[in-house]
Amino acid sequence: MTTDIDTRQTVRVDLGARAYDIVIGPGALQETGERVVALASGARCAIVTDENVAPLHLGPLADALSAAGIASTPIVLPPGEATKGFDHLQQTVEALLEARLERGDLVVALGGGVIGDLAGFAAAVTRRGMDFVQVPTSLLAQVDSSVGGKTGINAPQGKNLVGAFHQPRLVIADTGVLDTLPAREFRAGYAEIAKYGLIGDAPFFAWLEENLDAIMDGGPARTDAIARSCRAKADIVARDEREAGERALLNLGHTFGHALEAITGYRSDILVHGEGVAIGMVLAHAFSARMNLASPDDARRVAAHLERAGLPTDLSAIRSHIADADTLMDFIAQDKKVSRGALTFILTRGIGEAFIARDVPPSEVRAFLKDTLES
Amino acid sequence: MTTDIDTRQTVRVDLGARAYDIVIGPGALQETGERVVALASGARCAIVTDENVAPLHLGPLADALSAAGIASTPIVLPPGEATKGFDHLQQTVEALLEARLERGDLVVALGGGVIGDLAGFAAAVTRRGMDFVQVPTSLLAQVDSSVGGKTGINAPQGKNLVGAFHQPRLVIADTGVLDTLPAREFRAGYAEIAKYGLIGDAPFFAWLEENLDAIMDGGPARTDAIARSCRAKADIVARDEREAGERALLNLGHTFGHALEAITGYRSDILVHGEGVAIGMVLAHAFSARMNLASPDDARRVAAHLERAGLPTDLSAIRSHIADADTLMDFIAQDKKVSRGALTFILTRGIGEAFIARDVPPSEVRAFLKDTLES
Ligand SMILES: NC(=O)c1ccc[n+]([C@@H]2O[C@H](COP(=O)([O-])OP(=O)(O)OC[C@H]3O[C@@H](n4cnc5c(N)ncnc54)[C@H](O)[C@@H]3O)[C@@H](O)[C@H]2O)c1
Ligand SMILES: NC(=O)c1ccc[n+]([C@@H]2O[C@H](COP(=O)([O-])OP(=O)(O)OC[C@H]3O[C@@H](n4cnc5c(N)ncnc54)[C@H](O)[C@@H]3O)[C@@H](O)[C@H]2O)c1
Ligand SMILES: [Zn+2]
Ligand SMILES: [Zn+2]
Repeated sequence: MTTDIDTRQTVRVDLGARAYDIVIGPGALQETGERVVALASGARCAIVTDENVAPLHLGPLADALSAAGIASTPIVLPPGEATKGFDHLQQTVEALLEARLERGDLVVALGGGVIGDLAGFAAAVTRRGMDFVQVPTSLLAQVDSSVGGKTGINAPQGKNLVGAFHQPRLVIADTGVLDTLPAREFRAGYAEIAKYGLIGDAPFFAWLEENLDAIMDGGPARTDAIARSCRAKADIVARDEREAGERALLNLGHTFGHALEAITGYRSDILVHGEGVAIGMVLAHAFSARMNLASPDDARRVAAHLERAGLPTDLSAIRSHIADADTLMDFIAQDKKVSRGALTFILTRGIGEAFIARDVPPSEVRAFLKDTLES
Repeated sequence: MTTDIDTRQTVRVDLGARAYDIVIGPGALQETGERVVALASGARCAIVTDENVAPLHLGPLADALSAAGIASTPIVLPPGEATKGFDHLQQTVEALLEARLERGDLVVALGGGVIGDLAGFAAAVTRRGMDFVQVPTSLLAQVDSSVGGKTGINAPQGKNLVGAFHQPRLVIADTGVLDTLPAREFRAGYAEIAKYGLIGDAPFFAWLEENLDAIMDGGPARTDAIARSCRAKADIVARDEREAGERALLNLGHTFGHALEAITGYRSDILVHGEGVAIGMVLAHAFSARMNLASPDDARRVAAHLERAGLPTDLSAIRSHIADADTLMDFIAQDKKVSRGALTFILTRGIGEAFIARDVPPSEVRAFLKDTLES
């Protein structure tokens, strides 16, 4: 893994005083030191990571920081979604304080979305707000969770119900570190890339259809796909930082997806987030077709592409976990995107034409799920 | 306790989109319902309070809300500083979620600074930010902690090290509820009132010297003193919401005070916060005099006034807890206001002329403490 400046891409997240860069490409991690010095000279760092990522990428990151004269303290947490809770939040915050980091120092999140969300939230609340840098190591984190400033943890009542909007000062997406990511996690992250095409960029979706193999193989196409995804998310976040409107489009496939994650007990051996999203996006397209909003051909095209990417696209694999349509409906209604009883869904008029549909009749959704489960 | 509109005073905290009113006067609590409806019609509420305050003031507040058609869920926590930690933060957040409050609903903090800081922080992080209303019931909370948006909890490493800037939507300071406050807590809160005079308003300090008895007795002078204190804090906060500069003036007496609280183990039977601040303010004036910044007469005048208010003004009562000047110095250096090794103190050029002194020589402070302890 060598630094290759030619293949480096930078995406700017335009948020005025809180604007920051996402630096994307193979070997980008090795530049972390210089970039952190440029950002906050004299700062010390804590690196928050997990036990899977630490043996692979903590050493190189600490070395890159140290080469630039920056001392760092590692905070290594257990891997997995269960880490994103109050216990490890407290542990992380106390470790940051124990390391005697001051307000001008930096928290560096090295890992997937779990570490990014947790470490970002810990930074948000330690000393009422410390700066932080995202070094996402999963594909999902590179194209989605590390960008946009949503940080947080889960509660017994549901996922991501506790947290803060806290933008990072910098995101370093080293595409090289994805080489060590398990293939299944890579595919799950790919679902979010496809999402950006489906939301608002039909040409990007067509480009993904063309270049899927090259993206899976790595190389420039992968960097391009990641950069274009970051650009898409950055643009939406810049226009709607706190999800007053448009940002909700990023939830395409997620209302169904979250319900499927919940109904399978958030067991990653059964379904990981991106897999739930893949199924959810197909369902959102199929439901839109059923409501005569979009062509059924689009739903088929979406399913075909995600399937080619190795993702589940229907309920067959998890069918045994779903008692009936009513049970699934209950999980959907519990999703936090339910506002005062009305169902808000992201529906679509076709590929690249997603929109926010408020007041979707629950009866229509229930009937759709019933037919889908019985088919 | 009847509503008396004639004695009602309103102080506006000018923070642009986050501006809010502090409504001050006897019986103000009874207007909470109408005022909440005006703010967020259709919202539901959770009332966070403690076991001391609940039997006295929870019923009237819930009734006032209910009369305006607002349902509320009580969340009652143990009283005392120890409540301001991760355990009760988690308990409060989960209770808010369990009550199924949505983003447009309101968290109401009914209590002293402990409840205000904790409930405000819980509101800040639940669903990434819920609105909240402060109904401060201690004098300290009415003139200080409920205003300005600092919320948070303590960590093993120190007080208030975890938290968020999260402004309330409204503050209701019912001066009538102070009638049930223990006299010692009232006096402790009075130290913060005197602080506003000492920081930047010599005429206010002189007015306090004139009107001390009337303030202690209650009535219009008390309401005036509280309103003028809120005005002073609101002005500073409006100019420096996130403590980039001027807001640090509010820490007059607090660097010494916090060290005294810490060295006595935060035991409220020995020293409560306002008592530490009272001693701290006298020390800050005496140290300023020693540095030839201010006249020793001012230090004597401050001590005389605080003593008349029933507050401790020297180290005699806690002398046995302080081994020596070096130990006290260690506690001072551990205070969070220490930035990169340099000591930042709030010093003064005289009554009403406090200023932020960066780079105070630690050796001077140590020598001062040594002399003070030996005198
Ligand atoms: N904040 C946001 O806007 C946002 C958006 C989407 C998702 N999320 C959150 O992101 C989380 C999911 O993120 P995730 O899929 O990255 O999960 P994750 O952090 O659990 O990472 C997945 C697995 O891959 C491992 N891993 C990560 N990088 C690796 C690497 N380079 N080599 C080897 N192993 C590696 C991890 O240890 C973990 O076992 C969820 O909690 C979700 O809620 C947040
Ligand atoms: N957020 C800020 O800007 C800020 C500023 C100053 C202090 N603080 C915090 O405020 C806290 C101290 O506040 P406090 O002095 O109000 O402490 P507190 O909340 O513990 O209240 C003091 C005691 O009085 C009781 N009490 C409160 N109101 C009462 C009433 N009306 N009748 C009878 N009993 C009543 C409480 O139960 C408690 O036992 C500290 O944690 C401090 O860090 C915060
Ligand atoms: Zn997602
Ligand atoms: Zn104080």
